[in-house]
Amino acid sequence: MSKIKSLLNRFQTIRQNTLSIVEPLLIEDFSLQPSEEVSPPKWHLGHTTWFFENFILSKYDKRYKLFDQQLNFIFNSYYESQGDRILRNKRGTISRPTLEEVLSYRSAVDSSVVQYFDQLEDLISDEAIFFLELGINHEEQHQELLITDTKYILASNPLKPIYNVNQEEKKSAEIPLKWTIIDEGIYDIGHNANTFSFDNELSQHKKFVEGFKCGNRLINNKEFKDFMEDDAYSRPELWLSEGWEWVKKNEVNCPLYWQKKEENWWIYQMNGFKKINDLDPVCHISFYEAEAFARWKNCRLLTEFEWEVAASKLGSLTKSQCFSESKIFNVYQENLDNSFFGTAWEWTNSAYLPYPRYKQEEGALGEYNGKFMINQMVLRGGSCATSKSHFRITYRNFFHPQYRWQFTGIRLAKDID
Amino acid sequence: MSKIKSLLNRFQTIRQNTLSIVEPLLIEDFSLQPSEEVSPPKWHLGHTTWFFENFILSKYDKRYKLFDQQLNFIFNSYYESQGDRILRNKRGTISRPTLEEVLSYRSAVDSSVVQYFDQLEDLISDEAIFFLELGINHEEQHQELLITDTKYILASNPLKPIYNVNQEEKKSAEIPLKWTIIDEGIYDIGHNANTFSFDNELSQHKKFVEGFKCGNRLINNKEFKDFMEDDAYSRPELWLSEGWEWVKKNEVNCPLYWQKKEENWWIYQMNGFKKINDLDPVCHISFYEAEAFARWKNCRLLTEFEWEVAASKLGSLTKSQCFSESKIFNVYQENLDNSFFGTAWEWTNSAYLPYPRYKQEEGALGEYNGKFMINQMVLRGGSCATSKSHFRITYRNFFHPQYRWQFTGIRLAKDID
Amino acid sequence: MSKIKSLLNRFQTIRQNTLSIVEPLLIEDFSLQPSEEVSPPKWHLGHTTWFFENFILSKYDKRYKLFDQQLNFIFNSYYESQGDRILRNKRGTISRPTLEEVLSYRSAVDSSVVQYFDQLEDLISDEAIFFLELGINHEEQHQELLITDTKYILASNPLKPIYNVNQEEKKSAEIPLKWTIIDEGIYDIGHNANTFSFDNELSQHKKFVEGFKCGNRLINNKEFKDFMEDDAYSRPELWLSEGWEWVKKNEVNCPLYWQKKEENWWIYQMNGFKKINDLDPVCHISFYEAEAFARWKNCRLLTEFEWEVAASKLGSLTKSQCFSESKIFNVYQENLDNSFFGTAWEWTNSAYLPYPRYKQEEGALGEYNGKFMINQMVLRGGSCATSKSHFRITYRNFFHPQYRWQFTGIRLAKDID
Amino acid sequence: MSKIKSLLNRFQTIRQNTLSIVEPLLIEDFSLQPSEEVSPPKWHLGHTTWFFENFILSKYDKRYKLFDQQLNFIFNSYYESQGDRILRNKRGTISRPTLEEVLSYRSAVDSSVVQYFDQLEDLISDEAIFFLELGINHEEQHQELLITDTKYILASNPLKPIYNVNQEEKKSAEIPLKWTIIDEGIYDIGHNANTFSFDNELSQHKKFVEGFKCGNRLINNKEFKDFMEDDAYSRPELWLSEGWEWVKKNEVNCPLYWQKKEENWWIYQMNGFKKINDLDPVCHISFYEAEAFARWKNCRLLTEFEWEVAASKLGSLTKSQCFSESKIFNVYQENLDNSFFGTAWEWTNSAYLPYPRYKQEEGALGEYNGKFMINQMVLRGGSCATSKSHFRITYRNFFHPQYRWQFTGIRLAKDID
Repeated sequence: MSKIKSLLNRFQTIRQNTLSIVEPLLIEDFSLQPSEEVSPPKWHLGHTTWFFENFILSKYDKRYKLFDQQLNFIFNSYYESQGDRILRNKRGTISRPTLEEVLSYRSAVDSSVVQYFDQLEDLISDEAIFFLELGINHEEQHQELLITDTKYILASNPLKPIYNVNQEEKKSAEIPLKWTIIDEGIYDIGHNANTFSFDNELSQHKKFVEGFKCGNRLINNKEFKDFMEDDAYSRPELWLSEGWEWVKKNEVNCPLYWQKKEENWWIYQMNGFKKINDLDPVCHISFYEAEAFARWKNCRLLTEFEWEVAASKLGSLTKSQCFSESKIFNVYQENLDNSFFGTAWEWTNSAYLPYPRYKQEEGALGEYNGKFMINQMVLRGGSCATSKSHFRITYRNFFHPQYRWQFTGIRLAKDID
Repeated sequence: MSKIKSLLNRFQTIRQNTLSIVEPLLIEDFSLQPSEEVSPPKWHLGHTTWFFENFILSKYDKRYKLFDQQLNFIFNSYYESQGDRILRNKRGTISRPTLEEVLSYRSAVDSSVVQYFDQLEDLISDEAIFFLELGINHEEQHQELLITDTKYILASNPLKPIYNVNQEEKKSAEIPLKWTIIDEGIYDIGHNANTFSFDNELSQHKKFVEGFKCGNRLINNKEFKDFMEDDAYSRPELWLSEGWEWVKKNEVNCPLYWQKKEENWWIYQMNGFKKINDLDPVCHISFYEAEAFARWKNCRLLTEFEWEVAASKLGSLTKSQCFSESKIFNVYQENLDNSFFGTAWEWTNSAYLPYPRYKQEEGALGEYNGKFMINQMVLRGGSCATSKSHFRITYRNFFHPQYRWQFTGIRLAKDID
Repeated sequence: MSKIKSLLNRFQTIRQNTLSIVEPLLIEDFSLQPSEEVSPPKWHLGHTTWFFENFILSKYDKRYKLFDQQLNFIFNSYYESQGDRILRNKRGTISRPTLEEVLSYRSAVDSSVVQYFDQLEDLISDEAIFFLELGINHEEQHQELLITDTKYILASNPLKPIYNVNQEEKKSAEIPLKWTIIDEGIYDIGHNANTFSFDNELSQHKKFVEGFKCGNRLINNKEFKDFMEDDAYSRPELWLSEGWEWVKKNEVNCPLYWQKKEENWWIYQMNGFKKINDLDPVCHISFYEAEAFARWKNCRLLTEFEWEVAASKLGSLTKSQCFSESKIFNVYQENLDNSFFGTAWEWTNSAYLPYPRYKQEEGALGEYNGKFMINQMVLRGGSCATSKSHFRITYRNFFHPQYRWQFTGIRLAKDID
Repeated sequence: MSKIKSLLNRFQTIRQNTLSIVEPLLIEDFSLQPSEEVSPPKWHLGHTTWFFENFILSKYDKRYKLFDQQLNFIFNSYYESQGDRILRNKRGTISRPTLEEVLSYRSAVDSSVVQYFDQLEDLISDEAIFFLELGINHEEQHQELLITDTKYILASNPLKPIYNVNQEEKKSAEIPLKWTIIDEGIYDIGHNANTFSFDNELSQHKKFVEGFKCGNRLINNKEFKDFMEDDAYSRPELWLSEGWEWVKKNEVNCPLYWQKKEENWWIYQMNGFKKINDLDPVCHISFYEAEAFARWKNCRLLTEFEWEVAASKLGSLTKSQCFSESKIFNVYQENLDNSFFGTAWEWTNSAYLPYPRYKQEEGALGEYNGKFMINQMVLRGGSCATSKSHFRITYRNFFHPQYRWQFTGIRLAKDID
């Protein structure tokens, strides 16, 4: 099968997956924006469609006419180079276009994309193919945001509605915390350029990494409750200075979505509001909380380089079930020797910065990754909201240290004595 | 017809009216809150229903069971005495209950109310009757907010959708600005207690009012453009100090919903985005703008007492067509000698304060009006979003001086030389 | 003695008084601005001097040369018409001019003023005389701010320094709370124009005032502690809605300058940090607290019109010792039948608005009072920081309802049953 | 000379240097805090003294009595473990203690320190010696802040007073921009532990650094004006996303302390407000501006590791005159082949994060550096406000990317083609 055919197949699968994620939602859920970081589901549906229309159809398909000029304005995200756009914190004002109109927009653009690529290959520019692949990856990123934003939207509702009553419940395995030694060495870090990656994974480069001990699994709720019961949220010496300010200002005393009810901790998950399972990985914590927990344990977080080395030595991406393909959008600990992939992103103690010889693309693509390289920390590993097909071991996710609405967890490391 | 029968008839009409206001909306429009002051239409539908359930059915109907415990929390507004409630600025998080559920809630409560009052009159407490009348008036107030909030929600959408394409368009009459002398005297101000009024219209009391000259109509768009073209938004000497701060901080340079397009001023109205009509009354201005305009004209605003005296001498409530019954939710100037009633609320230069011998009610009712008597200015006259049946000449509306999303306009007065 | 001579005498006394107020301060105290509302003492010294230089010498004295061009910028306050000025919240940046330079500026301007007015009367314009009188009154207003700002500055210092160790301590008298009936009637309100007043006291006009009962003294600390111990700061039903927001947002639980130390309430006063005297009037409270206290007592505050009527019937301005002339800048209750004047300003339930036929002056003077007539409440009665010579029974002071750094107290009224 | 003697000599010199920095200031300059990041000079004088009193005298000198209990509260900075402290943004409230009292405090503590260490060496604990050395380094850090804060305080004053009229003026040399190739290799980074360093320079570790081209000098004002004239402050594509938000929100259009006057750019320097010299290094820019400038030039900033390698290969610390010892607190470009040291700190594109095997100290010292390791960028090279005796090639300074009041400049790097 040609590359184009294979991409088109993937395109159709991925586009369908997005729709299956929002399938359990009601019309009323699609337009809300309870927090500036969160986008309404309807916006994700439109924006991912805009990406294909704007970067492929409008540019390469001579016969294509814009589905609707106004949607271009509505569904542009942060591409300053692509014209005016609605402010990020105003995405919750979009009652119209209706969900039905957005679905028509999706379906019309899908047909046009398929039609465009379904011609003599010679007539298709390499750039268009590149953008098709990028658009697919872009859509997979938004699938993850769609899941985490939906969770936030539902959790904001005082009625705490369940996303999908039919979701299977998984039990976390009991796995003792163990340490594996990773040897000092010069390692290759970053993506090898033959297959697709985002620009922030480039260039592949050498890194001298000292030997260290790496934890085999994520920290669980029981361990995090111990931290809380040791008064950690009241002890400044455990926190980064800005973390401590954040705790006080926001009166933080537990992870996001936790709530105390008559002496027990409860949690909002996509399958409802329920008592906490001790063995489930702790999730929806800020970098500040992850870093403070590590200090409290006399350990530390891994750097993103250590993570990449350890994961490639110890983990097995193919074994993990904890990606979005399983349709279980809750975290649980798999019964694996070393669970490096899926369930929850792992905060690293690396700032999100360019790799050596990183080249920011010209034009719109230059806005994809590079312009966010300040004040954010790198996350590695993927979560239950990430699709396995999207994930790579070199994948770099990044968020500001105070954010908690992504599925974020903790892995520990130690120096060798 | 007994008082109860007559109230029940009115109850049914009013409840139906509310539904007719939202009839042109789509499901997607019902849950948005683009600004803290604005509530989603679904919230208004639920809250007015909650009022009848909470203050009548739950209190007086022994057999009544709450429709849904959670809706009580969701649809309480600001009654601290009535238990926990959702924060005002979080009303935009309510994706659920769905519109359908809220409509069921309305319909169930309506039936129960009718059923409760449809028994031997002797079994019905006077208090329950009082609350029925209050609830009707309360619903009429929310009808007005429903209209103004809907306008704000639609206008916030960059697509500027039309509320109702079938709305009739009215042409404003050309009416010269004239001055009528009102004589000095001791006048009765406030409501005479035999019929319904809000507590803030009580007690009726005497006021010594000096003679003054009263303008016969509202200021129109042409006159306001003259003010703008005289650089009024850049001249501090025309403004109250806080008004000037407000202008600078918010970079205000025209009324709300106005926009300049290639040398012409356009306006968003419920019937679309269109060129401004010079003869229409200027609307959606803050108290600051009204007050500055008056100073620029070497005039002043009326006090609320002057307004009440002038309106009772010169105006005719029965003649005005500019109330919500006409279903024309846009302002226009009627061809009347003295148009005191309807079209747009008139900012007065009176602070919203208690009348002599004002008694704040005990319990929840005490929260209805009295607790807002600070930092707000009184508006008089009613607007195209007010129902005529709801309005009285003693009616006191009130808003903070910076707010503009209500239909607010300007009438001028002058001292006698 | 001619009017000019008499004014010049007063000028010299008043200017000297200002210096005597700051006499106990150290150089370090003169430049601080711990809060936006508070101005550094050095700024008051300079600004009152600027007033005479700018409005008299620069305008009428042909031979006068500005002392220093830059001081004009530094010491302008809020007169938009008088050129650029330093932002109010930046007054704490003025390390230079030094105190010594400001004192030289004062002394140079004083000499020039005396010299200018010390010539043939015919050569002096009436306007210049008017501004001399206005400047004297303006300086007296700033003397009051100088005292209250100094108190705030010293109290902000964790060391809580004493303003003047030699200040006499006064004991409050024990005075039972009594009610006097004031009869209904038409009363004259406002200043009679033969002597000096501010424009906001004009025009004198008639007011119909209903009969009411007037409290004979200010509420004392013991009575306010009862309010606090009845959990008033936790009971929303006692507060205006904005007052309640203010309490929660600022975590207010006692008057300004109060502090709990091992079960006792202490207070910062100009003579030090000490245990509260139960009989002293409660002071440094917001309008919100005054209004809530009155509601809790089943009473209400007076309107400013009621106050003016009651004070002119019952009080005796000449008897009061509680003005700034006594150099006791702390509140205490005098042993008088009706203590209407001095000690603490009394919050009224009247908004600060123009009187009938109020004429805002042209030019700079128009900025003196009129532009503040929004969102402020009127205070009456004068305080221990007001000079008796400055005060009139028609005097209208005004502040925003949340402010507490002025000497503000509570008098109660009741309706007649 | 013993280590103690030598440290005591240094102690006395350093303490004297601090006084010489504030020597040109007037009393009024010592207490102001025009911005939250800036501390009043008096606070620096007191806090550095508190450091010796709190960490040496109170802990090791049994006979020592606190000079004043209250000063402990006043002059603690951010050490949560050392008891209550005044909030950082309230340092501008400290009118008292007076300058004189603070100078007495300094002199008393100095005598006690000298006396304590001037005994039999055996009686002195190693820890006390460690803290003496740390205190000296701590004081040198505050000398730098004292200079930059003083500059900010003087510049905030609209009169723009000169710090020291007698300061020598230096002319920048004209130096062509050249590129030197640094070879790929494994380099040692960080301090070698035999002499003093801060904990954040530890542990020394290996780093694989790719080859790159390093600029020989700082970017000058002329080059930065070219950037400005190319509309850089209006072109989002040149900026990090947060940088662009920062530009828009703060309406930034030039470096701090620049001002346009009739077509020319002027600058506030410690020696006055004057026309910009084209050859002087651009200074007082944020990381955002440095990073955007580099992108505009098709270059990039160095990492801190690249900087350390290049500076140790190419620079000569001993040759540079641009440290605070020269008493010229303005930036200028020296006539050196490679000016790596002094004049202005150089923003690197490295986040401030722990080195491998970094150990945060226990107790108060743990608060010295480690707790700031988030959301800050590393600066290298020292400035005209840094003392040469304090500086090391491994020295890591760090600030948030938006800060500009430190002496911060730009050095460029390029990848090898």
